Amino acid sequence: MKSVITVELPQQSYEITIAPGAVDDLGSWMNRLCLGQKVLVVSNPMIFRHYGQRLMDTLTEAGFEVNSCILPAGERYKTPMSLQKIYDAALVQRLERSSTLVALGGGVIGDMTGFAAATWLRGIAVVQVPTSLLAMVDAAIGGKTGVNHPHGKNLIGAFHQPRLVVIDPQVLKTLPAREFRAGMAEVIKYGVIWDAALFAQLESSPRLDQRRYVRESLLQEILTRSCEAKAHVVSQDEKESGLRAILNYGHTIGHAVESLTGYRGVNHGEAVGIGMVAAGAIAVEMQLWSQGDHQRQLALIQKARLPTQLPPGLDRGEIVAALQTDKKVAAGRVRFVLPTQIGTATVTDQVGSALIHKVLATLQ
Amino acid sequence: MKSVITVELPQQSYEITIAPGAVDDLGSWMNRLCLGQKVLVVSNPMIFRHYGQRLMDTLTEAGFEVNSCILPAGERYKTPMSLQKIYDAALVQRLERSSTLVALGGGVIGDMTGFAAATWLRGIAVVQVPTSLLAMVDAAIGGKTGVNHPHGKNLIGAFHQPRLVVIDPQVLKTLPAREFRAGMAEVIKYGVIWDAALFAQLESSPRLDQRRYVRESLLQEILTRSCEAKAHVVSQDEKESGLRAILNYGHTIGHAVESLTGYRGVNHGEAVGIGMVAAGAIAVEMQLWSQGDHQRQLALIQKARLPTQLPPGLDRGEIVAALQTDKKVAAGRVRFVLPTQIGTATVTDQVGSALIHKVLATLQ
Repeated sequence: MKSVITVELPQQSYEITIAPGAVDDLGSWMNRLCLGQKVLVVSNPMIFRHYGQRLMDTLTEAGFEVNSCILPAGERYKTPMSLQKIYDAALVQRLERSSTLVALGGGVIGDMTGFAAATWLRGIAVVQVPTSLLAMVDAAIGGKTGVNHPHGKNLIGAFHQPRLVVIDPQVLKTLPAREFRAGMAEVIKYGVIWDAALFAQLESSPRLDQRRYVRESLLQEILTRSCEAKAHVVSQDEKESGLRAILNYGHTIGHAVESLTGYRGVNHGEAVGIGMVAAGAIAVEMQLWSQGDHQRQLALIQKARLPTQLPPGLDRGEIVAALQTDKKVAAGRVRFVLPTQIGTATVTDQVGSALIHKVLATLQ
Repeated sequence: MKSVITVELPQQSYEITIAPGAVDDLGSWMNRLCLGQKVLVVSNPMIFRHYGQRLMDTLTEAGFEVNSCILPAGERYKTPMSLQKIYDAALVQRLERSSTLVALGGGVIGDMTGFAAATWLRGIAVVQVPTSLLAMVDAAIGGKTGVNHPHGKNLIGAFHQPRLVVIDPQVLKTLPAREFRAGMAEVIKYGVIWDAALFAQLESSPRLDQRRYVRESLLQEILTRSCEAKAHVVSQDEKESGLRAILNYGHTIGHAVESLTGYRGVNHGEAVGIGMVAAGAIAVEMQLWSQGDHQRQLALIQKARLPTQLPPGLDRGEIVAALQTDKKVAAGRVRFVLPTQIGTATVTDQVGSALIHKVLATLQ
């Protein structure tokens, strides 16, 4: 099984390769890109213990001069401080404009490594090797990079496209079940906003809450369809001036929930799960989509064993206030992505605070 | 007197306006760009005391909601820490994707503000209002932004083009003479590498070391021709993959000198002056240009009362070693821009360490 998806872009297109065992072939794929000799692999301790040596081996065999930079794991380390450590490693290895950063890890590692690549020497190459389901279907594709500000997620960032994305479904074996479920939230998102057939495939699977209950061919299909959806949207709107905004489905309230819980307790995918339920309920209230579709979405989110209620103790007023500092604010109005039927969504800034309060009350 | 120069770029072209009194017209020019309502002016204490109120007034009158963020002056504050202060101000004002940063100051303010704009919410608009000669003819144009790493200048940065550059020659009245001379180094650079007519105009001026000795029409001409040179080169090679590298004339050794003196003692323009003398001498040694042209360049640098010798105590070996960490290193070889005649230059990585040592010895 192998899928290759091209992200078509005016400046530089790139390929997403999805294949079991792909980690061991990275060196030869990177060789085809005519990159410089120096490569710095950025990862976290656990991931590097599992896959670091294999990655270093394939890169060394392909003739690269490889170093590594290991950062602490977790969203709370997605900070300017961690970024500084990548810069320091880049300086020690004397990375040049032709050098490459390789992100081996989940979304946090991918975002930070991408941002470091965007800003080291005003931009060097980055290759994404995502190891979480969430990073595979979302963060690793599309060039959004960044770190968190103490008062908001991804407030500091840049658009910087990778030169290559390599997805090895086998690495999901070591992914904790909770992380797998978090990634499933983004997969469900693609089903709701973009791909009704993917949604139906997800409905047909007896379970979605752990990798071992999802058969390999369906997993390959889920990864491929999700990456195709993301690649398609990014190709049409690289810098999020229009269409790309629909990828923020579930993220408006999701980000606020993450931010208010201090990026602890609720992870990104879980927050998106809650955010999709909220957005779906808002869409029903605004008569944009049917109660039936809303229930189908709810059933899928529950099948992935994702939360559908706000975490206890979280104040609705705080959430509404936090929405104002979100990047998706335009002229002071909060932008929401709302589903209209399974497979399509729309963007609107016509959601009033009163309606948000009302819907959030049903999630408590 | 008014000159308007367009920097033609595939993604978004922009104008450089050079006119006495231009500071008071910024609001109306910015209004034409259809920017969002929120504007954050970034400056330093001295500059803001001189021109801040006029700038705030023109922006307020034009209908913008304006705040300011004042940072300490000087290259040694061009750090991630200062950047953090801009981010914090952006957060307090709740800047949105449609908001604009205005850089009112010299190269340090321009570079940091540009980088903050490049990385806030993955990129918002920036308008450059340079107040030093150096920033007017160089830093404010072309989209190079960044901050310093403790071990190297501008190692952290991004390409982010301004939406508008407004140059008011009258503000040079408050520029210290030493800063004026520093800017003159870049003007001389354009004469050497690009514009023989500009070089001849500079030769015809009795003095170049203080603004009051340069007549207003010549100053307008110097600014216009320098900005035209920069705009032309940037239009042809936005990301410095080829032609743009010639703008680094005098900067290879210049950066090393600045870095080794800890960004104190020798300022950027002075370092470029020294770097041009060194590069000129290397070019003579390599028989790329004539002793006569080298002497004409030397005379002009001396007329601007810029240093032509290395600062005392600086070790040649250290300079050669420092060149290796420069951004302009490719595959371990240092790239030099060398003049071939007045008005043209070439880029080469064929300068050996022995020759660099030999030439630096003549500058001590």
